[in-house]
Amino acid sequence: MTHTTDTRFETARAALTDLGSAKVWSLIVTVMGDMAADPGAAISGACLAEILAPVGVRPEALRVALHRLRKDGWITSDKQGRSSHHSLTKSGLEQTRAAAPRIYARQPEYDGPWHLFWANPEQAGDPPLGAIKLGRGVYLGQGAKPAAEGYLCISGGQPKVPDWLRAQLGPASLIEAYNDLATALKTVAKTLGADAGLTPPQTACLRMLIVHYWRRTLLRHPALPVDFFPANWQETTCRQQVTALLDLLPRPKLAGMSLS
Amino acid sequence: MTHTTDTRFETARAALTDLGSAKVWSLIVTVMGDMAADPGAAISGACLAEILAPVGVRPEALRVALHRLRKDGWITSDKQGRSSHHSLTKSGLEQTRAAAPRIYARQPEYDGPWHLFWANPEQAGDPPLGAIKLGRGVYLGQGAKPAAEGYLCISGGQPKVPDWLRAQLGPASLIEAYNDLATALKTVAKTLGADAGLTPPQTACLRMLIVHYWRRTLLRHPALPVDFFPANWQETTCRQQVTALLDLLPRPKLAGMSLS
Repeated sequence: MTHTTDTRFETARAALTDLGSAKVWSLIVTVMGDMAADPGAAISGACLAEILAPVGVRPEALRVALHRLRKDGWITSDKQGRSSHHSLTKSGLEQTRAAAPRIYARQPEYDGPWHLFWANPEQAGDPPLGAIKLGRGVYLGQGAKPAAEGYLCISGGQPKVPDWLRAQLGPASLIEAYNDLATALKTVAKTLGADAGLTPPQTACLRMLIVHYWRRTLLRHPALPVDFFPANWQETTCRQQVTALLDLLPRPKLAGMSLS
Repeated sequence: MTHTTDTRFETARAALTDLGSAKVWSLIVTVMGDMAADPGAAISGACLAEILAPVGVRPEALRVALHRLRKDGWITSDKQGRSSHHSLTKSGLEQTRAAAPRIYARQPEYDGPWHLFWANPEQAGDPPLGAIKLGRGVYLGQGAKPAAEGYLCISGGQPKVPDWLRAQLGPASLIEAYNDLATALKTVAKTLGADAGLTPPQTACLRMLIVHYWRRTLLRHPALPVDFFPANWQETTCRQQVTALLDLLPRPKLAGMSLS
């Protein structure tokens, strides 16, 4: 671990954390989703501490967040002597896996038909599962047609999206969030160069921050092709930057990390 | 003109006029649409009087209605000596012809795709031309896709219609109107038998009444396949009765009618 490596890591880390504060429990969920999303995979408390230390998470804050995640059914913890090992619960795994395709896809796919649902809200049953609410009683679905009792639905090709709807789906605050994210990711990429050469905990920490800030922005809007958003929408740019950086920073083996 | 023929005509006439009062101008428009819808076709005032007399229209009421129709641009009148000849104007012909397919079709066709349009009413442009308003900002179109600036639209096959929407499109009052019409048309068919044997003015009068009450009910709801309406919807029954009766009562030649 050279001084130069530390400086480069710090520059990249700061570019990301400058995007806004992050909850410790949310960072843990990100790490576990990124590093321990296979059934049976576990991550030690020491390892988590090592990954989270560079973003200022102290052991006490880590303990509180782990307690909360256990209480909420996200993780289970297994104490072995002085060390704890944490795993995602079945429900935690399911939620992680449900979100993963959208977060990690190099190019999201929107195969299959589109569905426009409408019902008078007084008359409608449950909203069509997985469909996006566009307005009062109006939902847009994509792919396999969800059951939707009480709705009128026409299914067909991808619709052209009027400008006002693009602006509704991609408001100025979100355009700005993508702009900021793209700038930060550009700084990270420039700082790391072609060969990052970081330690395993540093690699895991940067992966965590990249996925965290990317996911945070991505999940603020519905999953739709970029044609549904304003012209200056940097989702695709950010996605390309994220996948390039995750390729540059492959998941370290958990065995390679310890506080020893 | 036998007494028996008059009685049968009167029974059929009464079955129809019992469906409700009719405006004289509206009956004239119906007669002219039915008898004089070719460009250049005209119908004499004497002839109109003869067709309308059995439904209680006196010469003075006829004159007032003709005056109104001239003023509204529906008809033009040409005075030749003591007799007047009335024709539909270009605009009157256009409106008549636009409505004719729906009124006279033996089986209405709904070829081509269906379109579900949606826009926030604050954002929308003009409603999609020819589309049916289903709710706030929601329109349904069929056939060639109308231009609709500012709308989101998905086009596809004929949708399944939820029960509450069937009830909205075909309210109880309209179900009842079709029931009453079907009953009246059944009486007319039973009264006339297989060979009506009426005079030309009687034939023209019954045609007018059949088309008038049929159109009046039909145009109270949007043009949609019967699957869009409640289960006990008698539109198809009435349409079959109307076309059978119009076949039984072919358009008399105008030259065959006079007050002489």
